Amino acid sequence: MKIGIVAPGGRLSPEIPDKVLALAAAMYPDPGRRPDIVFHPQCFETSGHFAGNDAARARAFLEIANDEGIDAVWMGRGGYGAFRLIETVLPRLTAAAKAKIFMGYSDAGALLGALYGAGIGRVAHGPMPADLGRDGGEAAVRRALAFLIDGDAGALEPSVAPGTPTAAFNITILAHLVGTPYLPDLAHHVLMLEEVAEPMYRIDRALGQIASAPAIGRLAGIRLGRCGGIPANDPDFGQGEEEVARFWCDRAGIPYLGRADIGHDTANKVVPFGLWRP
Amino acid sequence: MKIGIVAPGGRLSPEIPDKVLALAAAMYPDPGRRPDIVFHPQCFETSGHFAGNDAARARAFLEIANDEGIDAVWMGRGGYGAFRLIETVLPRLTAAAKAKIFMGYSDAGALLGALYGAGIGRVAHGPMPADLGRDGGEAAVRRALAFLIDGDAGALEPSVAPGTPTAAFNITILAHLVGTPYLPDLAHHVLMLEEVAEPMYRIDRALGQIASAPAIGRLAGIRLGRCGGIPANDPDFGQGEEEVARFWCDRAGIPYLGRADIGHDTANKVVPFGLWRP
Repeated sequence: MKIGIVAPGGRLSPEIPDKVLALAAAMYPDPGRRPDIVFHPQCFETSGHFAGNDAARARAFLEIANDEGIDAVWMGRGGYGAFRLIETVLPRLTAAAKAKIFMGYSDAGALLGALYGAGIGRVAHGPMPADLGRDGGEAAVRRALAFLIDGDAGALEPSVAPGTPTAAFNITILAHLVGTPYLPDLAHHVLMLEEVAEPMYRIDRALGQIASAPAIGRLAGIRLGRCGGIPANDPDFGQGEEEVARFWCDRAGIPYLGRADIGHDTANKVVPFGLWRP
Repeated sequence: MKIGIVAPGGRLSPEIPDKVLALAAAMYPDPGRRPDIVFHPQCFETSGHFAGNDAARARAFLEIANDEGIDAVWMGRGGYGAFRLIETVLPRLTAAAKAKIFMGYSDAGALLGALYGAGIGRVAHGPMPADLGRDGGEAAVRRALAFLIDGDAGALEPSVAPGTPTAAFNITILAHLVGTPYLPDLAHHVLMLEEVAEPMYRIDRALGQIASAPAIGRLAGIRLGRCGGIPANDPDFGQGEEEVARFWCDRAGIPYLGRADIGHDTANKVVPFGLWRP
């Protein structure tokens, strides 16, 4: 098993690779089972906000995604920047990319959504190497590795079930895909949504857009993941995240199915896009 | 001339009406020419984040918009909340609403865009009563009144010209209309965009969505208004707002036409939606 790591948005801290390799060695003491994990040098480049300019990030993504020797493309980190790459990379992905797993969350969701919409590879929403920057992030990265390497069902969000297609996004990232050619059709999917560090009025605004977007398709339902680190709303919003989610689901006729075990935190579970083929 | 003021988003400060009436009296000392300006009591209600709950705000908007004795609906303030009203109010507007001017900006742009898309009334992007809360806000409100009452061409954004349809929005508000049924078709329009208090990465993200949205139609061009009060980007974004606007215009094949004299400030000029019929 060979995993290639790229950073379509922000730069990765240089101490991350040693930590990931140490975790993988601890999880797989038998060198014969241990995955080969490669960090593309682009992960550590800097160009203003980004881990290298658009061309560098697109080139790195294509090198890893189109490499026949690599089984999984693991997004190193979120931040912002994945959307800028979609138009460049999507038409340049080869058959080798279509055989791969792609995993990440947060900003990387823009690219994951576009890949899923284009039917390229197997896509999953799950922890990233940069989660090692969080307290207790080892649990998240172990979960991600267990999923990528062994397809460990224990890594899955608990409501994921055979026969029901799923998808998961950060709320703001999905709202910004709406109306673009890169929004996947999620008809019949259970859509899981999480947010971090956005005031309630912005969560409300983004959920309103998502619930009002015909191109998302008729969802089987929405589950709300954790909304963490929400700054105070001024004035107090008067409604919590679940009331807001129920409001927009009710208005749009989308079943609200309760909470999902995903979020910008170390408990973030893996959500496959579509029906997962182990 | 009778102007009715409602607040589709946030609550208006109670000292605003006296200030607006005093300004109007100073501008029109002849009582025969002085406009009749009425603030709907809903402007001063509170329900969490909003100037009254959705039902109260929708009812007030409909009362003013459908009142045959009123010539102009002036949005009192932005904030957040206009999008929540669209689905309720749009199908309930009568012929009386279709004869009116509707003006505002910021969050109110969601409703203005929906009105324009539905062909209801004459719509304009321009100052609001709440601008009196800004230093020097009298100039903005005088400009708005001169436009509403006299159709004063001196109030117009200077690039507005007969024969070229225009529209103007806050960048974030327009991005959140994209992909919903309320996004107007802006084919052949010059689109003017302004922003306030959003970090550069968010301006970039929202402009990317706008430039990538087929339903906006083939724009005649984009003009960038002021982007004020931009918080520091961490790390430094590496590009200014005009570079970012040019980038997305270039990628989408939209002519970038330079700056527009609009913004969340007291110099904010009036931009009619479409071709203005004085």
